[in-house]
Amino acid sequence: MTSDPFFHPVSGFDLPRFAGIPTFMRLPHIAPGDPRFGEIDVAIVGVPWDSGTTNRPGPRHGPRQLRDASTMIRAEHPVSGVRPFEAMACADVGDVAPNPADIQESMKRITAFYDQLLDAGIMPMTAGGDHLSSLPILRSLGRKAPLGMIHFDSHTDLFNSYFGGTMYTHGTPFRRAVEEGLLDPKRVVQIGIRGTAYDTEDKDFAKSVGIRIITIEEFHDRGVADVMAEAREIVGNAPTYVSYDIDFVDPTFAPGTGTPEVGGPNSYQALQVVRALDGLNIVGADMVEVSPPFDTSGGTAFLGVSIMFELLCVMAGRVAAG
Amino acid sequence: MTSDPFFHPVSGFDLPRFAGIPTFMRLPHIAPGDPRFGEIDVAIVGVPWDSGTTNRPGPRHGPRQLRDASTMIRAEHPVSGVRPFEAMACADVGDVAPNPADIQESMKRITAFYDQLLDAGIMPMTAGGDHLSSLPILRSLGRKAPLGMIHFDSHTDLFNSYFGGTMYTHGTPFRRAVEEGLLDPKRVVQIGIRGTAYDTEDKDFAKSVGIRIITIEEFHDRGVADVMAEAREIVGNAPTYVSYDIDFVDPTFAPGTGTPEVGGPNSYQALQVVRALDGLNIVGADMVEVSPPFDTSGGTAFLGVSIMFELLCVMAGRVAAG
Amino acid sequence: MTSDPFFHPVSGFDLPRFAGIPTFMRLPHIAPGDPRFGEIDVAIVGVPWDSGTTNRPGPRHGPRQLRDASTMIRAEHPVSGVRPFEAMACADVGDVAPNPADIQESMKRITAFYDQLLDAGIMPMTAGGDHLSSLPILRSLGRKAPLGMIHFDSHTDLFNSYFGGTMYTHGTPFRRAVEEGLLDPKRVVQIGIRGTAYDTEDKDFAKSVGIRIITIEEFHDRGVADVMAEAREIVGNAPTYVSYDIDFVDPTFAPGTGTPEVGGPNSYQALQVVRALDGLNIVGADMVEVSPPFDTSGGTAFLGVSIMFELLCVMAGRVAAG
Amino acid sequence: MTSDPFFHPVSGFDLPRFAGIPTFMRLPHIAPGDPRFGEIDVAIVGVPWDSGTTNRPGPRHGPRQLRDASTMIRAEHPVSGVRPFEAMACADVGDVAPNPADIQESMKRITAFYDQLLDAGIMPMTAGGDHLSSLPILRSLGRKAPLGMIHFDSHTDLFNSYFGGTMYTHGTPFRRAVEEGLLDPKRVVQIGIRGTAYDTEDKDFAKSVGIRIITIEEFHDRGVADVMAEAREIVGNAPTYVSYDIDFVDPTFAPGTGTPEVGGPNSYQALQVVRALDGLNIVGADMVEVSPPFDTSGGTAFLGVSIMFELLCVMAGRVAAG
Amino acid sequence: MTSDPFFHPVSGFDLPRFAGIPTFMRLPHIAPGDPRFGEIDVAIVGVPWDSGTTNRPGPRHGPRQLRDASTMIRAEHPVSGVRPFEAMACADVGDVAPNPADIQESMKRITAFYDQLLDAGIMPMTAGGDHLSSLPILRSLGRKAPLGMIHFDSHTDLFNSYFGGTMYTHGTPFRRAVEEGLLDPKRVVQIGIRGTAYDTEDKDFAKSVGIRIITIEEFHDRGVADVMAEAREIVGNAPTYVSYDIDFVDPTFAPGTGTPEVGGPNSYQALQVVRALDGLNIVGADMVEVSPPFDTSGGTAFLGVSIMFELLCVMAGRVAAG
Amino acid sequence: MTSDPFFHPVSGFDLPRFAGIPTFMRLPHIAPGDPRFGEIDVAIVGVPWDSGTTNRPGPRHGPRQLRDASTMIRAEHPVSGVRPFEAMACADVGDVAPNPADIQESMKRITAFYDQLLDAGIMPMTAGGDHLSSLPILRSLGRKAPLGMIHFDSHTDLFNSYFGGTMYTHGTPFRRAVEEGLLDPKRVVQIGIRGTAYDTEDKDFAKSVGIRIITIEEFHDRGVADVMAEAREIVGNAPTYVSYDIDFVDPTFAPGTGTPEVGGPNSYQALQVVRALDGLNIVGADMVEVSPPFDTSGGTAFLGVSIMFELLCVMAGRVAAG
Repeated sequence: MTSDPFFHPVSGFDLPRFAGIPTFMRLPHIAPGDPRFGEIDVAIVGVPWDSGTTNRPGPRHGPRQLRDASTMIRAEHPVSGVRPFEAMACADVGDVAPNPADIQESMKRITAFYDQLLDAGIMPMTAGGDHLSSLPILRSLGRKAPLGMIHFDSHTDLFNSYFGGTMYTHGTPFRRAVEEGLLDPKRVVQIGIRGTAYDTEDKDFAKSVGIRIITIEEFHDRGVADVMAEAREIVGNAPTYVSYDIDFVDPTFAPGTGTPEVGGPNSYQALQVVRALDGLNIVGADMVEVSPPFDTSGGTAFLGVSIMFELLCVMAGRVAAG
Repeated sequence: MTSDPFFHPVSGFDLPRFAGIPTFMRLPHIAPGDPRFGEIDVAIVGVPWDSGTTNRPGPRHGPRQLRDASTMIRAEHPVSGVRPFEAMACADVGDVAPNPADIQESMKRITAFYDQLLDAGIMPMTAGGDHLSSLPILRSLGRKAPLGMIHFDSHTDLFNSYFGGTMYTHGTPFRRAVEEGLLDPKRVVQIGIRGTAYDTEDKDFAKSVGIRIITIEEFHDRGVADVMAEAREIVGNAPTYVSYDIDFVDPTFAPGTGTPEVGGPNSYQALQVVRALDGLNIVGADMVEVSPPFDTSGGTAFLGVSIMFELLCVMAGRVAAG
Repeated sequence: MTSDPFFHPVSGFDLPRFAGIPTFMRLPHIAPGDPRFGEIDVAIVGVPWDSGTTNRPGPRHGPRQLRDASTMIRAEHPVSGVRPFEAMACADVGDVAPNPADIQESMKRITAFYDQLLDAGIMPMTAGGDHLSSLPILRSLGRKAPLGMIHFDSHTDLFNSYFGGTMYTHGTPFRRAVEEGLLDPKRVVQIGIRGTAYDTEDKDFAKSVGIRIITIEEFHDRGVADVMAEAREIVGNAPTYVSYDIDFVDPTFAPGTGTPEVGGPNSYQALQVVRALDGLNIVGADMVEVSPPFDTSGGTAFLGVSIMFELLCVMAGRVAAG
Repeated sequence: MTSDPFFHPVSGFDLPRFAGIPTFMRLPHIAPGDPRFGEIDVAIVGVPWDSGTTNRPGPRHGPRQLRDASTMIRAEHPVSGVRPFEAMACADVGDVAPNPADIQESMKRITAFYDQLLDAGIMPMTAGGDHLSSLPILRSLGRKAPLGMIHFDSHTDLFNSYFGGTMYTHGTPFRRAVEEGLLDPKRVVQIGIRGTAYDTEDKDFAKSVGIRIITIEEFHDRGVADVMAEAREIVGNAPTYVSYDIDFVDPTFAPGTGTPEVGGPNSYQALQVVRALDGLNIVGADMVEVSPPFDTSGGTAFLGVSIMFELLCVMAGRVAAG
Repeated sequence: MTSDPFFHPVSGFDLPRFAGIPTFMRLPHIAPGDPRFGEIDVAIVGVPWDSGTTNRPGPRHGPRQLRDASTMIRAEHPVSGVRPFEAMACADVGDVAPNPADIQESMKRITAFYDQLLDAGIMPMTAGGDHLSSLPILRSLGRKAPLGMIHFDSHTDLFNSYFGGTMYTHGTPFRRAVEEGLLDPKRVVQIGIRGTAYDTEDKDFAKSVGIRIITIEEFHDRGVADVMAEAREIVGNAPTYVSYDIDFVDPTFAPGTGTPEVGGPNSYQALQVVRALDGLNIVGADMVEVSPPFDTSGGTAFLGVSIMFELLCVMAGRVAAG
Repeated sequence: MTSDPFFHPVSGFDLPRFAGIPTFMRLPHIAPGDPRFGEIDVAIVGVPWDSGTTNRPGPRHGPRQLRDASTMIRAEHPVSGVRPFEAMACADVGDVAPNPADIQESMKRITAFYDQLLDAGIMPMTAGGDHLSSLPILRSLGRKAPLGMIHFDSHTDLFNSYFGGTMYTHGTPFRRAVEEGLLDPKRVVQIGIRGTAYDTEDKDFAKSVGIRIITIEEFHDRGVADVMAEAREIVGNAPTYVSYDIDFVDPTFAPGTGTPEVGGPNSYQALQVVRALDGLNIVGADMVEVSPPFDTSGGTAFLGVSIMFELLCVMAGRVAAG
């Protein structure tokens, strides 16, 4: 809990929301090394990186656009009344510096950055980046024990390889994470899976290790409440990561992404699924695959930061609970 | 009722819909002072003004774009079969001339324009403009007695002031209207309220004066029919104003607006809520906050005029009823 | 059934999906006259033609954009597991060459092209083109006996004439088709009809000949399953054409079209209605009115090809059944 | 000369330029039949028609967008000081109603409309429409004697036919006009011709009848002043038509057109060539091929109306001269 | 001169240019009150304000977009080799907080902010904002003695009032500045003036007080070198302000602005005119009227920051000279 | 020379230019292995790859968009009258399949593809792809002896490394090519160099090995003819490669690119510099860095293919000369 106004976002009543240098949520920028770095509870981190993208690139521009859109977010949750930036000390810790031309080097840099956060007791909320970003993050967060994961997406990202043997793309991160012992597959649930398929290799793998896949058909049939109750049960009270690929949402609501699949949830459901996470033992979250070049109206980024705010409110509950 | 073809829109069967000077709904342009001005039942008025906007500007361009999109509207309601332009004499009476650099002066001009309509017994259907436009309109329509209001919006617009004491912005019109006795708060209902909040000042005010707020969560849970039944009860049979902020609708369906909030109604619900107004004692209506610079595909304006057509059909019922 | 890899689309695992010459679905291009033309089971045909458009033009660019978007489609249906390009030999047979400045000449060329397909025992899947395209196609497919039709649209396209006597526009094809005996009106159902109306001439005609119109209100009230069950009953087991106007879908999900009507189905329902066609005796299908100049994000075309894939899977079931 | 304020555009000092119903140049709308029709000196006419387009359609939307952009034009020429709307009575006479699905019928309607103007002694300034529009206009203006023509374009529009015998497209109007005796080819000059060619059929025809073609290479080498001096000499003092295809200008300056050719004049040269027409015996002018769907920023339409203003100033000189 | 790496922009070789929180030119953010504030030589200031705009709004979004685009700027001038961020200590000092709904209050806040800079001996480089922004800035910079000014623009901004008596709009700032004694009109030159005119009131005023107007026609005829030589002579060696309205540049090169006028300089000339300022006694500069909502490709902002970099290099020369 | 109509593009007089499967220039698609592969004189090759991009990605989409735009190109050069597709057998040989997640592997695949062409005596015309594409191409073309190069660009692409040691990016290809002996630096000229600089490392290298850099300032001062005469002299009659980065052209004319620099040549100059290559001993050419996601109007791709046509005409001269 922080009542230190230093950590409060600038209010739109003081400085209009279109004004000012766009940090995430208009929070203070506190880079690693800053004297107040240690006071942070939750860090919002940019991972401007899309070298794992096998299709249309763009998520490297995600953090910049998400910062811009985030200046539209205000202080208080409309339903729960949670004021996350008062409940916990949040800060924009800047971007990890990727090397767009070297995947392995970039992954090392990302893991090292998150290790720094973890060592300082800071919980990360990531703005990606393509979905490969989640792997180096999990290498840090899951370094001690495998995590559970609630994964919103239209794709499983559980393939073994692409293009004849390439093991690290945005279609493979969770296969690697399971293999590396970063995720406990029995505590992983993937929600919203849909779209035409290459084959069933990914789903076969999921089955073989115990990952639960909830297709979009099941999602639409059962509804948010029922599906999320099952998801909560799967991850239980143990440490859990939340990975939110914006292409979980129907591409009409979120066109700014590289590999859209039609027929997904609407924007209200996109928020509801996060609200249903309240009380879980969340240790980190990401919002990935926001691709500004395909976001002609900016609406995808705004939806993205609206979801990030919901995630922060859920995290605030847990921080408050200690 | 008018069978005078002078007041009928040009048919798309005669002049293709992309052709011709774009007056509202392809109606005749009858400015105040015109000899036929007195024959008008319902005037469509443009209020090209957004000086009350605290965030992203643009609604000053709304009337122009709404006129353009309105040439896609035809003669007959698909469900009720109402033909509003035969049921009543409608006209495009042009735009009020605002002074973009003087808020008080602009409000005076707007009120004066509507007084002219009222004096001639003409009911106004407004194409805004930002939501501050509703205040000077209500100063005319509510000059004799406070009105009820059905207000579709994602924001309450009930704040006291912005930027340290600025009383007239698009976030304050209905606070002012209640204070000025133009609205009867007990006969005011606000539907669709959502989004992150500065604080609860606006909702506290609503509570204190008896304004009923129906949040988007309640809207989605109860459904259109149930919510609108309550709304009808709240306003009753007394004179009622309808204020429709396009940001009531989910921003994916209506991206062309300045302060979007995700998670709103879809376009079908956007029409249904108006159909549910049938038979009410409506004395005027507005469609506000359509902001063309953010409407990359023109879809917002088209939805806006589709809603305006629904409003006209509801008005036609009342005009028919005498 | 074909296991000949010649007819399989190029996999995104071999050649990234943004690469390569964009044929429909990355299928081989086999023009009439090609030695392997006779092996084709289902031909995807482009009809780049919009001379029948009375409003905003653009569908002449549809086939090009649909080909481009179709390279995002993979091999397998996510629910049924159908792999249509293995179940039947599919090919891109190119575009019919229209004459943009001569409607009658263009219709003759289209009919002649489809006659060629029919003579070779090939079932056509068309990428239009405006809706007038369906008439010359039906002149071929329905030349021997009138067909049933399941027609997804927001308009009936049953008007008699436009602009004082013009009989061939995209608002009249099915009136002509009924008059010419190409369709059996008692086996025709139109789903999704909505929007402001000129008058009831089209609906009166439908009633007089026995065409069943299911309005959008009925669609939303009853739901996909119930409506489609009725549609299946109407067409029965006899040969049936499927005509899918992209403006059936709500314009927020499919803005790239010339005559949008708000309040339509979402993208999930857009797929579901096709899945419900499984097992019908389909002899051809079209996807029309995709208008790239109004499709600012490309999402309409992607939805269009997603629907085309669903249609192909339904056709595959029938081809499999022999 | 008119000092009647009825004919003066609304000033941006009175009504902001984004406000009001968008007539051409904010002039009064005076349809044929209006009592003041006979007082008009110069009529601005919309021809919303593009059925002659063999490539990308869109100019049917030109008049609407040109009207919109024209509200940015003020009263006085910055160099000459001419105030055209005081020098002559100008009005927006509305659009000719085309039949988008019937070329011959549309041409008849256009010619009839211009005959009405001519009979009333009104000089037309046209906002097209594709370039085929010029043919039915010339059938009116050139009905008594063949005219000279200064033609700005990247294409000659002198082809004989398209698609195997189609005689009326936007690539053939001036071939037809010469054949029909509407233009005196020896008094015709075409400026700015460029781009890849089908063949030399059009240029061979030009040569055979004495039309002078000034290619873009010659234009850039010699400069505006020299080229326009020759053009003036070619048309002399006899009645002359000015046809200005927006694709004369480089497509970077005017992207909103259907058949762009790179390497053209810039926007300053686009104005200069019109200024050089001062004093000629102009009997009519057109601005054609403005295609809003391809004009992503609206800049093409604004350049188009800026050129139309220049043309009106040149016309004003002649009207002043009697 | 500063060799303190604290003041150096982050290199694109270390952090890719699309990454990081977008401060101006990737400089450190040093707000007034910061301990290092006093070390700054040149402050880049955002003025996100457009309440003086009489036409299309948007420049309130300018500073945000200019910051974003500025991350594309590198360290060294390609011709002179000047490295401005090493030659002087530059910083992003954030935005002045305007009140979008109160013009007078906003002007007071702006002047107060610049007074702070002046008191600290910091030279301001402003990113506007509409052109009215220059007036409150000049009220600070010219408080002791009237300044000379080199003004690049297509408009004189010398009108007396708008809308019947409104004295403070973006069309009047320099009339006010002359009246208030902030500018010495005999040392003011306006370059690039063009476009249709309301009347000659502004030019008459210029003449009466001795302001030199160089029209675009004169600019194109004489060329950059000749025109700028005269400009240098006009302002001489005394303190001079540089005001650069992006609409000086042709709107094809800079579409993102509210009141474009065609026929202006190209992007190369846009840079050249600044290079010609080298050695002048510049005390401040602004880049105004960049309007992101009309900058569909972002090119306007990138040109804007490219010009700002040129201005900084010129300032660096003077700082170096002491 | 080929008179075989098999190799002629489809004429827009037969099939409208918006129709048909978009191969480059509407040429036949002849993949390696096709029986007619050996008859090809000039192959147009797509390299859909941008993994070397350090800034904004997108050129992987270049070949697709260039193919689409290329259907606007006709048969004959407007000045020289050359008909390249009759002068030599041209074909679209498809795209090299890159691996977007593996730079070294992709370079190997590219070199292997070009080796195939070289072995068959086919001259390549490449549609990139980012500028790193040129390196693996040169590894094939320059395998026997170092080539000369005329390089149009705003950047030298001669840096040693990025991000602390990354040797293969789109900023380093020609440094590598010189080091690997693929280019003879004394026969290399770079034209159009401009923009803010990191430092002078690249220019120092150029100087040290004898590469001639012609800056944009020199280009504008001397003019096309003079500069190109020097360029011709530098490369002489020996085998020469032409590398054309679209960012050579001013970004207003070619916004669709990742690293724009303002102040470049216009579209006419963009063509003229190619025309000046006539008669040189060209052994291959590329058009790179066309980035569709930033090409909001498609104009960049159209300019790109217009330049490719000019390059083909120059190649045709050489093929004709034997």
